[in-house]
Amino acid sequence: LFNLEDRGGRRLAIRPEMTPTLARMINARAQALPRPIKWFSVPRLCRAERPQRGRLREFFQWNIDIVGVDDIVADAECILVAVDFFREVGLTPQDFVMKINSRSLMSRILSGAGISDEKLPEAFVLIDRAEKIEPDKFKAMWTEQLGQCLPYDRLAALLGIDSIDELESAAKTLCPADAFAAELNQLKSLFGLLSDLGIGECCAFDIHVIRGLAYYTGPVFEAFGKGGLSRAICGGGRYDELLKTLGGPAMSGVGFGTSDVVIQDVLKELDRLPSTASELDFFVIDAAPELFPQVLNLVARLRRAGHATDFSYRRQPLGKQLKTASQRNARCAVILGDETIQNGELIIKNLETRKQSTCLLDAFIAAPTEALRDQ
Amino acid sequence: LFNLEDRGGRRLAIRPEMTPTLARMINARAQALPRPIKWFSVPRLCRAERPQRGRLREFFQWNIDIVGVDDIVADAECILVAVDFFREVGLTPQDFVMKINSRSLMSRILSGAGISDEKLPEAFVLIDRAEKIEPDKFKAMWTEQLGQCLPYDRLAALLGIDSIDELESAAKTLCPADAFAAELNQLKSLFGLLSDLGIGECCAFDIHVIRGLAYYTGPVFEAFGKGGLSRAICGGGRYDELLKTLGGPAMSGVGFGTSDVVIQDVLKELDRLPSTASELDFFVIDAAPELFPQVLNLVARLRRAGHATDFSYRRQPLGKQLKTASQRNARCAVILGDETIQNGELIIKNLETRKQSTCLLDAFIAAPTEALRDQ
Repeated sequence: LFNLEDRGGRRLAIRPEMTPTLARMINARAQALPRPIKWFSVPRLCRAERPQRGRLREFFQWNIDIVGVDDIVADAECILVAVDFFREVGLTPQDFVMKINSRSLMSRILSGAGISDEKLPEAFVLIDRAEKIEPDKFKAMWTEQLGQCLPYDRLAALLGIDSIDELESAAKTLCPADAFAAELNQLKSLFGLLSDLGIGECCAFDIHVIRGLAYYTGPVFEAFGKGGLSRAICGGGRYDELLKTLGGPAMSGVGFGTSDVVIQDVLKELDRLPSTASELDFFVIDAAPELFPQVLNLVARLRRAGHATDFSYRRQPLGKQLKTASQRNARCAVILGDETIQNGELIIKNLETRKQSTCLLDAFIAAPTEALRDQ
Repeated sequence: LFNLEDRGGRRLAIRPEMTPTLARMINARAQALPRPIKWFSVPRLCRAERPQRGRLREFFQWNIDIVGVDDIVADAECILVAVDFFREVGLTPQDFVMKINSRSLMSRILSGAGISDEKLPEAFVLIDRAEKIEPDKFKAMWTEQLGQCLPYDRLAALLGIDSIDELESAAKTLCPADAFAAELNQLKSLFGLLSDLGIGECCAFDIHVIRGLAYYTGPVFEAFGKGGLSRAICGGGRYDELLKTLGGPAMSGVGFGTSDVVIQDVLKELDRLPSTASELDFFVIDAAPELFPQVLNLVARLRRAGHATDFSYRRQPLGKQLKTASQRNARCAVILGDETIQNGELIIKNLETRKQSTCLLDAFIAAPTEALRDQ
């Protein structure tokens, strides 16, 4: 955290994430809000950590949350929103995968295998890191911290599975099937809903997804680009206790966040960043400096009509202004000349086709888009 | 300022405004940037002061700057952008006025009247506050701080003028006309350009506009709502020295800022806040719970096609889902029934006209907008 004390002696911090803030906001008005409570926000967040790829000290995070719905159809809808967003920014099912697991399922299995409730958070933190560190190091850490409750080899058999179909038999080597049957069915139902929503091909079970934050309790999910960027490009899950923990009613929620930084990184890696080149409809030019007031007038009218329009600050020869218009990628140059203006006319020059035509000023102002279309 | 020391012992502050940051950014790349440099940003800013009407501790500010152009046509363009924005959010020339003055002009007149360069900043701070405090208090403060250089009565004659036409004769009582002729002509030219741009009726000279920030040097401007909200709804001006002061080249700039808070306040006062009611195109309903997977599938397709679409989380009777659709202001309910779906059909019910019709599922998916238009 970046934290500070203000002049009133209050201890303040710059927000590092939004979910607890959202929980407090909802708690303050819990009875007045119609449910389900669907919420989005795009906060600017700060984290006092070393900047690295996919992670800066300051970034924007897009948050989506659905609060007050226990049914996992809300989890499915959150995942749909994330997947639709990735598609909308240009990612295909070949470019990313939404990895899904369930904390409640993992709790049941690990508890059944001998890990006490007190040790569970520690186990989750380690499993969350399992694929980010060397296997030998993970083995050593697990053995030291949790090996007495659950030997590493028995855990490794569980973590080695690749699909939800293998989960039941692998888990049954650790504990009885009825210890986790309800949670497994819920997770399978979630995959069924995702398939109904038409996004099954973007989603996959992954036993390593457990999320770093402590407040998740149910299904958890993280999307990853399939290229070299190993960092998650979105993460979320269900939190059943957070609102109550922060003094509110027993109301569960599900949500996810994604940041401008990771999305930009993954799009850059795939060479699919959208163009930010400026697009100009019109560049208005005077053939003589005394026509400049009319240039200004026309520019203001075209802008007000919604057209990206620009002009030269300096009064320059016609050719020089035309050159600037081309450099600025304007689609059309609009030229005011001494003679034409006396007849209430102007010249429209299409800078792609180089075709030009004379047109009545009034007609042009009434329908500038015609000029963009015609030529 | 909200300021803090981070773990590395660095002294940091949360940005209270953007212009000095912009100047530093431009200074870092001054030679590489093509000119004019036109820049906008929407930073979130924080000020450690008591929250009040039109002013919160945290707010968004929209900034527009044009750097590297000495010509006042850049000042005119900045003012055009501000005025166009106010019109776009629903303000008319009857609702607001852009008040304009010139710091360089005021400097010349006040210097000529006997105020030394060292005392000028103090004089500006007082004049900036003149209309915000009691006349008697202003008189007492001026007399105490600056009365020896320029007696209050002589200043009052200058501050009492209502138009730029009165300025020359009023100023000539304080100093020779050639002390300020160039600056007066520049300000008059600016009004000429604003008139060319078609926004003359929104702009007015106001000798009290001087701006609180020290870095302004040329024309300065502030927009005010004409209602009871006495706070400026935008403010800006020309800064000739700022980049150089911050270690950059001698390059001048002009810009303005406006905040979400003041714009919201003025629109609220005029009862012209835009509606934020949610607009829903389709609400998809199942006549039997076993059709829910098809509801989900249709919802996902409609959303991907860009239509605001929702559905009930709980499987409820048809009538109850229809009621929810109406409560949510959906334009159409899309009903999947056991019999219709077997024929590849669905029912579209327009919730305004209450008309309903049967339509082929494939045809609806191919062109959902037809359903919105037809009925």
